[in-house]
Amino acid sequence: MVEEFVTAIPKKSVDFADWYVQIVRRAELADYTPIKGCMVYRPYGYGIWELIKDALDRRLKATGHQNAYFPLFIPESFLTKEAEHVQGFAPEVAWVTHGGDEELEERLAIRPTSEAIVMPMYAKWVRSYRDLPILINLWNNVVRWEKVTRLFLRTTEFLWQEGHTVHRTAEDAMEETLRIFGIYQDLVENELAIPVLVGPKSAQEKFAGAQATYALEAMMPDGRALQCGTSHYFGQNFSQAFDIKFLDSDGEQKHAWSTSWGVSTRLIGGLVMTHGDDSGLILPPRVAPIQVVVVPIFYGSEMAEVIAKAEELAKALEDAGIRTKLDARDEYTPGWKFSEWELRGVPLRLEIGPRDLQAQQVVLVRRDNRKKEKVGWDNLLARVPEILKDLQAALLTRAREFLRASIYRTKEYGEFVSIMESRRGFLLSPWCGEASCEDKIKAETTATIRCIAEQEDAVGAACIACGHPAQAWAYFAKSY
Amino acid sequence: MVEEFVTAIPKKSVDFADWYVQIVRRAELADYTPIKGCMVYRPYGYGIWELIKDALDRRLKATGHQNAYFPLFIPESFLTKEAEHVQGFAPEVAWVTHGGDEELEERLAIRPTSEAIVMPMYAKWVRSYRDLPILINLWNNVVRWEKVTRLFLRTTEFLWQEGHTVHRTAEDAMEETLRIFGIYQDLVENELAIPVLVGPKSAQEKFAGAQATYALEAMMPDGRALQCGTSHYFGQNFSQAFDIKFLDSDGEQKHAWSTSWGVSTRLIGGLVMTHGDDSGLILPPRVAPIQVVVVPIFYGSEMAEVIAKAEELAKALEDAGIRTKLDARDEYTPGWKFSEWELRGVPLRLEIGPRDLQAQQVVLVRRDNRKKEKVGWDNLLARVPEILKDLQAALLTRAREFLRASIYRTKEYGEFVSIMESRRGFLLSPWCGEASCEDKIKAETTATIRCIAEQEDAVGAACIACGHPAQAWAYFAKSY
Repeated sequence: MVEEFVTAIPKKSVDFADWYVQIVRRAELADYTPIKGCMVYRPYGYGIWELIKDALDRRLKATGHQNAYFPLFIPESFLTKEAEHVQGFAPEVAWVTHGGDEELEERLAIRPTSEAIVMPMYAKWVRSYRDLPILINLWNNVVRWEKVTRLFLRTTEFLWQEGHTVHRTAEDAMEETLRIFGIYQDLVENELAIPVLVGPKSAQEKFAGAQATYALEAMMPDGRALQCGTSHYFGQNFSQAFDIKFLDSDGEQKHAWSTSWGVSTRLIGGLVMTHGDDSGLILPPRVAPIQVVVVPIFYGSEMAEVIAKAEELAKALEDAGIRTKLDARDEYTPGWKFSEWELRGVPLRLEIGPRDLQAQQVVLVRRDNRKKEKVGWDNLLARVPEILKDLQAALLTRAREFLRASIYRTKEYGEFVSIMESRRGFLLSPWCGEASCEDKIKAETTATIRCIAEQEDAVGAACIACGHPAQAWAYFAKSY
Repeated sequence: MVEEFVTAIPKKSVDFADWYVQIVRRAELADYTPIKGCMVYRPYGYGIWELIKDALDRRLKATGHQNAYFPLFIPESFLTKEAEHVQGFAPEVAWVTHGGDEELEERLAIRPTSEAIVMPMYAKWVRSYRDLPILINLWNNVVRWEKVTRLFLRTTEFLWQEGHTVHRTAEDAMEETLRIFGIYQDLVENELAIPVLVGPKSAQEKFAGAQATYALEAMMPDGRALQCGTSHYFGQNFSQAFDIKFLDSDGEQKHAWSTSWGVSTRLIGGLVMTHGDDSGLILPPRVAPIQVVVVPIFYGSEMAEVIAKAEELAKALEDAGIRTKLDARDEYTPGWKFSEWELRGVPLRLEIGPRDLQAQQVVLVRRDNRKKEKVGWDNLLARVPEILKDLQAALLTRAREFLRASIYRTKEYGEFVSIMESRRGFLLSPWCGEASCEDKIKAETTATIRCIAEQEDAVGAACIACGHPAQAWAYFAKSY
């Protein structure tokens, strides 16, 4: 049974796409539903989201942001007010046309993002420079009618947060854009252990309606990039479209400056792909709903005593703030349980059997490298947090090494194409700044600019696509 | 200016409906939007919801419930599977008919409640009695196309939680229905300080598709009842409609037993109405986003010193786990600030001026009874939690007295009608159990049965409407 349970999952290195779907479903993170492109977030997957949410919410509140909630619906006439914005989102909008038996006079978009309903309200609330900044974040659901979907990574409906801020000056708005960008990087790297490349998008790749979009881009094991979050600087685009004006201290009416930014449950897909192995998920302890699983090992007469001690230790760990699960089910063998909790990516397993009772110890087994360690009961509450911290750091280190090894620097288009076809990864190459060159590369390789490498000096370099003088170096990749 | 600010709000006792709307909007709990029947939850109102959510979430997790997320959409064919259910909800469903440019083959309901999408998934997941119970809760948004709406109390879209559980036996399901009912009563009375009557609904008033609905009913100052939460026992209705079967330990296939239950942001409307006064909101400390507002009082040269001390005290309170706000704005007078924070219902105001610096004290002013108290700096961290606790208890006591005084026991229909027309409140009267008598009373007085008084003995009593032998005593009221 155990054997069958495990072997039914394809190897990560052999069929990555199928491995991903199997892991997500068998670990009970998510499931398909009868509605095309919509998934259920099951408790274990939603539990990860709750931890990510808490971690980000803390950071946002500490920097002066407040949560609120805006309507699910956007009247069509509002969505069309910012020209670029509607062009970007209209093709994937779900439309409500009827309420009960009545046809609506104006159809309502289900928000694909909320700028077009948030901004009109800000226009109502902002009068004076004293009302600025407004720093509001929304935790909600959005809908984008996608043709091709994939659990967590691209679904018709998904959960996310979207921040919307308005400011008195351009500098304030840009500072906010970058502050959030920094918070996202801290979140993704230090909570999820996913290292990212960061930088601005090209004009072609930026958010519909933004003047600048900053992105975090991670590299998945199949050589494709995953966008993990974006922070947008709108300049005055939206405040002009929605007429957000304020009386400044110099007595003049001015348009405000705005930003928006978001990360979504797609991050959970990134977690699965980045850290998992052939046995299943590996969750970084900071976002693991269960950090330690306690598995008592017993045969017949020793059962009561072993379970009693397992319960005591599990309670002590829980009381010490470690998310702990006791698995005392008697219908499964210890081996079955080991496989199940490995599949579900629990960072640390605690085994306790009759001999451990004698020796007043337990056996701890790390999920990432399977290293076993005997720890005395007295030392358990000190040792477990140390191992969890080590494990968190080890996952980040391993992922960082992979990211570093996935970046190829090249000035030769032939090499560019050949790498993009074989190993994939991030190709760091000079670019002239023209959309036509992005189009050519996309047509020939399906790769796009993921972000611009701001720290690289492009003087004297030639565009990888057209040979004209480069404006910048950029990271190209195929992406999710 | 201060005068104008306050007098523009009608007195609670004079125009209750207008008072309510003014308070909700001016305290910045919520605002109207361009979408009919939809409101914005502004940060202060959403902050109350976050506290209610945390308080309930803690209780639900402590009793073994887990959170998850299910799709916003329900295919029409699923909504119609349980006959009573669709009849109850179809008239108020918002329908999605188009995704992007394409017309959908089957239109999608935006969930008015999620039974019809949750149950089909449970049917997929449940195989054996070992898979039961499933105890899942959802925090989400739902949409009901309402004709008449009122901020927080009845809106087209609202936020809530909906729990959906399936069980092995009828007893387990009924136990869950009542356990949640108890959790709700604890939440509403001990966190929100809103006392409630509790009991089952009549067949006519129960949830569409339920075998029994238990309700919490509060009394508002205008004599109308507010339903504060419901817990439904479905028997096997939904598990038969959606074919949720399991293999029991006796080797037989059986249908499961299910429940659902919910409370919504309507509770915030109940808070406003129950506790507020002519000066604005009064928030029970346990759900107040700001528990203490610190207002430094300064003139010219003393400013720096007073503000420094105010900052220090505010920080000490915050560090002690008390939600504290320092209002050091220099563009408003202390009097203006007092009015503003009273309007916003902050339970406790801390004033500190130059003379208080000398005396090493502050002045504390309670929002509910405006009692002032001088407290030495040394004693502040001990005294503030005491006052907040007192205030929380005082609000509940006052509301309990009001509830008690709002219950009229009568067996005479003439008296029933006359009270329902004048003072309103809960009328406790004998009832024969027939829907026709409920219909008659509703037609003549607009009152309905809010819940059945289970502890009252109906033997020998005559139905208030028809005079036939009563089956039970019931609480009748006009309601929101």
